[in-house]
Amino acid sequence: MEKETGRIEGFSDGVFAIGITLLVLDLHVPELKEGMNGTALWRELSAQWPGYMAFVISFFSIFIVWVSHHKLFKQIYRRNTGLMFANGLILFLVTCVSFPTNLLARFYHSEAQQLSITLYTGLFVLMNLSFNLLWFLASRDRSLLRPDIDDQSILEIRNTYLYGMPTYFAAFALSFFWPNTALLLCILLWVYWAFSSGKLQMKRRRRVKAAL
Amino acid sequence: MEKETGRIEGFSDGVFAIGITLLVLDLHVPELKEGMNGTALWRELSAQWPGYMAFVISFFSIFIVWVSHHKLFKQIYRRNTGLMFANGLILFLVTCVSFPTNLLARFYHSEAQQLSITLYTGLFVLMNLSFNLLWFLASRDRSLLRPDIDDQSILEIRNTYLYGMPTYFAAFALSFFWPNTALLLCILLWVYWAFSSGKLQMKRRRRVKAAL
Amino acid sequence: MEKETGRIEGFSDGVFAIGITLLVLDLHVPELKEGMNGTALWRELSAQWPGYMAFVISFFSIFIVWVSHHKLFKQIYRRNTGLMFANGLILFLVTCVSFPTNLLARFYHSEAQQLSITLYTGLFVLMNLSFNLLWFLASRDRSLLRPDIDDQSILEIRNTYLYGMPTYFAAFALSFFWPNTALLLCILLWVYWAFSSGKLQMKRRRRVKAAL
Amino acid sequence: MEKETGRIEGFSDGVFAIGITLLVLDLHVPELKEGMNGTALWRELSAQWPGYMAFVISFFSIFIVWVSHHKLFKQIYRRNTGLMFANGLILFLVTCVSFPTNLLARFYHSEAQQLSITLYTGLFVLMNLSFNLLWFLASRDRSLLRPDIDDQSILEIRNTYLYGMPTYFAAFALSFFWPNTALLLCILLWVYWAFSSGKLQMKRRRRVKAAL
Repeated sequence: MEKETGRIEGFSDGVFAIGITLLVLDLHVPELKEGMNGTALWRELSAQWPGYMAFVISFFSIFIVWVSHHKLFKQIYRRNTGLMFANGLILFLVTCVSFPTNLLARFYHSEAQQLSITLYTGLFVLMNLSFNLLWFLASRDRSLLRPDIDDQSILEIRNTYLYGMPTYFAAFALSFFWPNTALLLCILLWVYWAFSSGKLQMKRRRRVKAAL
Repeated sequence: MEKETGRIEGFSDGVFAIGITLLVLDLHVPELKEGMNGTALWRELSAQWPGYMAFVISFFSIFIVWVSHHKLFKQIYRRNTGLMFANGLILFLVTCVSFPTNLLARFYHSEAQQLSITLYTGLFVLMNLSFNLLWFLASRDRSLLRPDIDDQSILEIRNTYLYGMPTYFAAFALSFFWPNTALLLCILLWVYWAFSSGKLQMKRRRRVKAAL
Repeated sequence: MEKETGRIEGFSDGVFAIGITLLVLDLHVPELKEGMNGTALWRELSAQWPGYMAFVISFFSIFIVWVSHHKLFKQIYRRNTGLMFANGLILFLVTCVSFPTNLLARFYHSEAQQLSITLYTGLFVLMNLSFNLLWFLASRDRSLLRPDIDDQSILEIRNTYLYGMPTYFAAFALSFFWPNTALLLCILLWVYWAFSSGKLQMKRRRRVKAAL
Repeated sequence: MEKETGRIEGFSDGVFAIGITLLVLDLHVPELKEGMNGTALWRELSAQWPGYMAFVISFFSIFIVWVSHHKLFKQIYRRNTGLMFANGLILFLVTCVSFPTNLLARFYHSEAQQLSITLYTGLFVLMNLSFNLLWFLASRDRSLLRPDIDDQSILEIRNTYLYGMPTYFAAFALSFFWPNTALLLCILLWVYWAFSSGKLQMKRRRRVKAAL
């Protein structure tokens, strides 16, 4: 059976690629002032570290979301309207990332730090919910999936997103009281995902080998 | 017969993806002021709701236009000059969307509200006309279409765009007198399209099943 | 023989798509002033017509350049370093378009009109030269081209770009004395290209039919 | 064996294409002042030459990086997590290029020139390291590579990136004392790469012919 979702993936890749690249527009080049020398420029650039932090976190967040999207769509062969719009929701949230990133960069050093982190973690709660929705809609109708997919793999993918949910909610809740801990939790989750994605693959390979 | 329109679709997807992602650049991050706390930031962010509204409406408008474009080009296998330029016109309008979106966001709360909504709905009248033109040019010459397409499907597609026309014109006309109603009509039309696209598919499947 | 240039086309399409979509960022949304009503907004928007003109001309210029690129690369099956960098030059110029477009929009109504039009037409002289270079490099080595291409088609393509050269140079020269005529000449050339591209196809088809 | 890396290449091409096209946003169109004529505009445009220089250097840097990426991925057929994230690192750096380019354009004519060039060359040191990492991870596990690749080609590719490393480090070190020499060294390295890429291909072809 031929994969029918090529153009959806192409369009999604475009949105991911643009969303991830636009983030750099949020980094501000200091103004050139009278008699500004290297030391002064370095001081101004260093003072912008929350901007770099927000940029780096958001870049790799979108990248990991893209890796997830990539893996998910390797299992999806056909599309229906629900799938199209669940995917649209994910793309919408990817597009949005730049806005709370900007907020975080600008208000990290202000009294509004907590709010900016709450909005930031809140966006990733929504992102997780959209992925759960997408996989729920896809796995409900087996005719949409790769013909040779087994129940075990469907469950494994479901669990990846389902287990992420309480963690994202926890980060969101924490952000009201300990914003920096909440942000750290999000970063740790992404590091975990990056590594666990490798482990899952290996497990699958071992299972395949065992089956042979 | 091989599909000849792959690169047209790739390029179009690029324009759609960028057009839809650039919209976020119109959301303004409030300036950091002396002693600004979470409450003050929240108040400033809330006051920007017409900007979010315009962003959300335009995002899903372009998304639905892309879904339409995707469906249309699944039926188109070859290209001629007319088709190229009708498609160019659609891409031009997609690119434009960000401008009236910006106008709508900025002038929704002003005396120029009516004009900004009129321009916004006017753009989608032109979009509908371009889609009608594209399908007219494509269906006029059967050698451009998928070899196994039937007359019924050609007609169905034509009707989808043709029936949209009076509604868009109505929204445009309404916008002069009841701008908010006009905007609401546009949104309802997109919701209708999102759902009807599913129903059309189902109808087609039922027809296929009946034919077997 | 398999086409080897898929990824070059994909990357080029990306640059074209972004170059063409970024143009809209040059349209300025008027500032919201105290008591600004529909009439005042309309007046401000109307006063920006050189911006819309520059936007429309540049959009369709890039679009026609893309159509050309698309046609050229349908004949190119393999790549070498020269081809890569001639293509890089074209992409560089596509990326640049937004800058003279902006100049044209801003200085059309000023004493610097002539300079802005000269720079604008100058860019398209360079664009034409790059296309001539690309086709020269591609057609010099038949092993890069589509295996079944005939000499007549190679010549036809060469002539299309070669005949454009004096016209672009004429527009550039004219721009020093009659800038508006130069701009008009460019537009007419694009209209001519849009239509002639169709005629060329038909000629080729007739030739194919005659050969059968 | 089917190539598994198509979507990674597509996404990467998107990021490259956007990164390379966004550079133009850093060129500033002079403000329209009272009685500004062609001479005045020309003077203002000419004064911006460091901006054009930075734009041109960065455009072709990203382009050469893309050519490298393209060549590398022609040899890579399968992916693992390490590869995904090494590629993510390259894309991150590509995205970043616009920031030091902007710094270079703005501070080239100031006392902070040295710092801006140091940061600029520093970015390309990181870029070189990422490519070395990517190829190290890919070549360590032959099952990821094109099935018919020979040891000689693997070594050749490794050497290309390995030999670049001391040169980039030299440029970075030089930038502290002779910033312009460092910048020139970077440009020369790109010119060398552009040409050597051609020679490598020819060598490989000769080897193939000799083997036949």
